[in-house]
Amino acid sequence: MADLVVVGSVALDSVKTPFGQVAEALGGSATYFAYAASFFTQVRVVAAVGEDFPPAHLALLEAREVDTGALQVLAGKKTFRWTGEYGFDLNEARTLDTQLNAFAEFKPVLSPSLAKAPFLFLANIDPELQLDVLRQMNRPQLAALDTMNFWIQGKREALLKVLAEVDVLLVNDAEARMLAREPNLIKAARSIIELGPRVVVIKRGEYGSLMVSDGSFFFVPAYPLESVFDPTGAGDTFAGGFMGYLAQRGSMDPASVRRAMVHGAVMASFTVEDFSLERLKRLEPREIEQRFETFQQMVRFER
Amino acid sequence: MADLVVVGSVALDSVKTPFGQVAEALGGSATYFAYAASFFTQVRVVAAVGEDFPPAHLALLEAREVDTGALQVLAGKKTFRWTGEYGFDLNEARTLDTQLNAFAEFKPVLSPSLAKAPFLFLANIDPELQLDVLRQMNRPQLAALDTMNFWIQGKREALLKVLAEVDVLLVNDAEARMLAREPNLIKAARSIIELGPRVVVIKRGEYGSLMVSDGSFFFVPAYPLESVFDPTGAGDTFAGGFMGYLAQRGSMDPASVRRAMVHGAVMASFTVEDFSLERLKRLEPREIEQRFETFQQMVRFER
Repeated sequence: MADLVVVGSVALDSVKTPFGQVAEALGGSATYFAYAASFFTQVRVVAAVGEDFPPAHLALLEAREVDTGALQVLAGKKTFRWTGEYGFDLNEARTLDTQLNAFAEFKPVLSPSLAKAPFLFLANIDPELQLDVLRQMNRPQLAALDTMNFWIQGKREALLKVLAEVDVLLVNDAEARMLAREPNLIKAARSIIELGPRVVVIKRGEYGSLMVSDGSFFFVPAYPLESVFDPTGAGDTFAGGFMGYLAQRGSMDPASVRRAMVHGAVMASFTVEDFSLERLKRLEPREIEQRFETFQQMVRFER
Repeated sequence: MADLVVVGSVALDSVKTPFGQVAEALGGSATYFAYAASFFTQVRVVAAVGEDFPPAHLALLEAREVDTGALQVLAGKKTFRWTGEYGFDLNEARTLDTQLNAFAEFKPVLSPSLAKAPFLFLANIDPELQLDVLRQMNRPQLAALDTMNFWIQGKREALLKVLAEVDVLLVNDAEARMLAREPNLIKAARSIIELGPRVVVIKRGEYGSLMVSDGSFFFVPAYPLESVFDPTGAGDTFAGGFMGYLAQRGSMDPASVRRAMVHGAVMASFTVEDFSLERLKRLEPREIEQRFETFQQMVRFER
């Protein structure tokens, strides 16, 4: 088990889906990532919140032994707030309001202890900040990156720089196509490999995920859920399961990376069963085991 | 190896994709199905064409030992023609022209020998004809059905009748949702099981396919192709690989049904690599084997 550092957002989300709504619930990429990864390894969160951040949320992360020592509380600022809505097509959120608040001032500074962590996840933030964090690190064993269309279009040069220095990229299919400027997803994945990362993970929501690595493909379906309650955080939870498992193993051999993909899919499948972290809060380790086995049964066939 | 009968269309397709075009090429559901299944078992085609049907096309099927004895050539009629176009999103065809011709007069009549065949595929035709064929059969060991939105909306009652009497339904995801009147695909698949078939196969194009059977799910990805040339016939080719393999095995045990799904995906992945039957015409059995193994490598992970 090795230290895993995540740099990203901690937010208060107000979300409406066809199945209900929540106001100012705990959210943010670093939050979902850390909570999911905490089932596998020691996680340390680098993020910024405002003075109004509820202590109960902090306590929730700490109850999972997530290290929040590098969570900056910015004086005179409010916490990042996101308001979004999903229709019956749960594949895409409609953003109704974004208040960056403390997140706009976020300048990650890594202590010497954090800089030595062997596993790093750069959640979806400005690629210039991602690059800055990477430069502060002391050669992590594994660095992974998430990004989004906003940065792919708006800060392509910075993004390409950080991409050249990471081991793993996790994106959704539209982002992969946009980044590679290639409509065919398979060609897109291969050409992203040319940009630096040796592993590309493409998340496709209800269609599962795929990984390209060493010239070979690995596919994981999405868990067949009869009701997806709220997809917010699914991608970051996937990344948390993926990186958490690899940090627990302390290894990047091909078999471990495949199991990491499945653990990502397992964790994401729980997150979407309820709002915010509600499902993860009541998750038992044996449920992770059981769902992992179900994934194996869902794809297994013999010659 | 057991006799497999297919009832469907034999057509002349004019297709345009972003990668090229063909005029009056050999097509039709029964054609793709039979050609694909011929790599696994003896296939017998029940269909109708016009006097203008090129003898070379017939010879092509016969060269694969497909039995065309029940292919009716209707005097004074022309062969069914379909003209369609695909944009860069190859998931859906735009139909430009349909001339039913001989297909409009098609009244399948099964000889006693055909009626005894143990394996039957009812390709996408009027469900009243499908039911009529099923009633002519002498209790096949396995009957499978394809259909489409046109019949689901226009002849629902007849379709429900034939559905109640078949073992397997193969449809795409939109058709499954429409048939079950349920937006969630997993719930839709489960509720189709209630309508009769004990196996439901849902084809999702570039996202692969899934099967529901005995309360469990089985997922197969699509083969990662860098260029999909023409998706026409992919679904019928899938069905041909699926049913052909089961007829070859003469068995419906769960492991065989899973392998049949993979053979369906393998065969479909070849068809879309070129127009019409061009890729299948130059397909070698060892290529089927190789791609089957690749599918296994693409999903395999260990505990």
